[in-house]
Amino acid sequence: MEEIVVLRYGHRPYRDIRVTSHCCLVARALGANKIVIEGFEDKELKKSIDNVVKRWGGKFAVSFTDSWLKEVKKFREKGFYITHLSMYGKPFNEVVKSIRKNKKVLVIIGSQKVEIGVYQESDLNVSIGKQPHSEIGALAVYLDRLFEGKELDKKFKGAKIELTEKDEKK
Amino acid sequence: MEEIVVLRYGHRPYRDIRVTSHCCLVARALGANKIVIEGFEDKELKKSIDNVVKRWGGKFAVSFTDSWLKEVKKFREKGFYITHLSMYGKPFNEVVKSIRKNKKVLVIIGSQKVEIGVYQESDLNVSIGKQPHSEIGALAVYLDRLFEGKELDKKFKGAKIELTEKDEKK
Repeated sequence: MEEIVVLRYGHRPYRDIRVTSHCCLVARALGANKIVIEGFEDKELKKSIDNVVKRWGGKFAVSFTDSWLKEVKKFREKGFYITHLSMYGKPFNEVVKSIRKNKKVLVIIGSQKVEIGVYQESDLNVSIGKQPHSEIGALAVYLDRLFEGKELDKKFKGAKIELTEKDEKK
Repeated sequence: MEEIVVLRYGHRPYRDIRVTSHCCLVARALGANKIVIEGFEDKELKKSIDNVVKRWGGKFAVSFTDSWLKEVKKFREKGFYITHLSMYGKPFNEVVKSIRKNKKVLVIIGSQKVEIGVYQESDLNVSIGKQPHSEIGALAVYLDRLFEGKELDKKFKGAKIELTEKDEKK
């Protein structure tokens, strides 16, 4: 897989800052290239994630949009396969291989209730289990499986801080 | 694996309610049997998760403790293998198979900075990648890999609500 972008739907000021911040950290740590946040343009949040990138390396971008639909159309034009994580989607175990065949994948994750258009505009709705879930946890499983676990051992280029074996506790 | 229990370290009132709530949902949805929360005894949080269990089925317990150390000792006596998720741990890809050999596993996840004793008391510190992370995301990857993805297709007994193929969107 060449490029994975996360689209975070419906970010609200204050209330969502920690949860969206976790989404950003998961996206970055588990190999996504970018997160686009729909909703409130949260400058503090972006600053804190940009700061992580500066210190810990790699390329990871945080940007904002006022329209998820505009983003979906833009990414589709660029050849992205559009997926959406929802308990109403197809079981992940059944579709993971077919998703992996795409070089570029957009993955939409909700927060508040997602409008029906998100289901309709997606090429594939995917359920990471059929139970009430956390979008943070669902995104983590999704990325880890798409990359078959290899993302965990990836080096982040240009890091000022890097943990090595010497830092490991038993 | 027979039994996996999550120990959530350092839950603070108000500030942590959404994040800990995500931890509970991930633990339940991805096959853990129980979560023990150390810190503030958050009755609202427990009520909301108990309510999920009542409606969506399965057995999943939320309880509180005022001492993580007491819990670690108690679970160790019961034969649990004690793991702790931290970027300073052993790389997950290297240790996942050895963890799977244990029938009963406790997994400690932090929130605020974890005291050094947690590292020392654990049988194994495990890193889900060496990058700043979300404990919610790390827990999700940990459980999904321990259960080799099978937990996603598990049926939850006694559910009042159950999603089936008919509910799936394309």
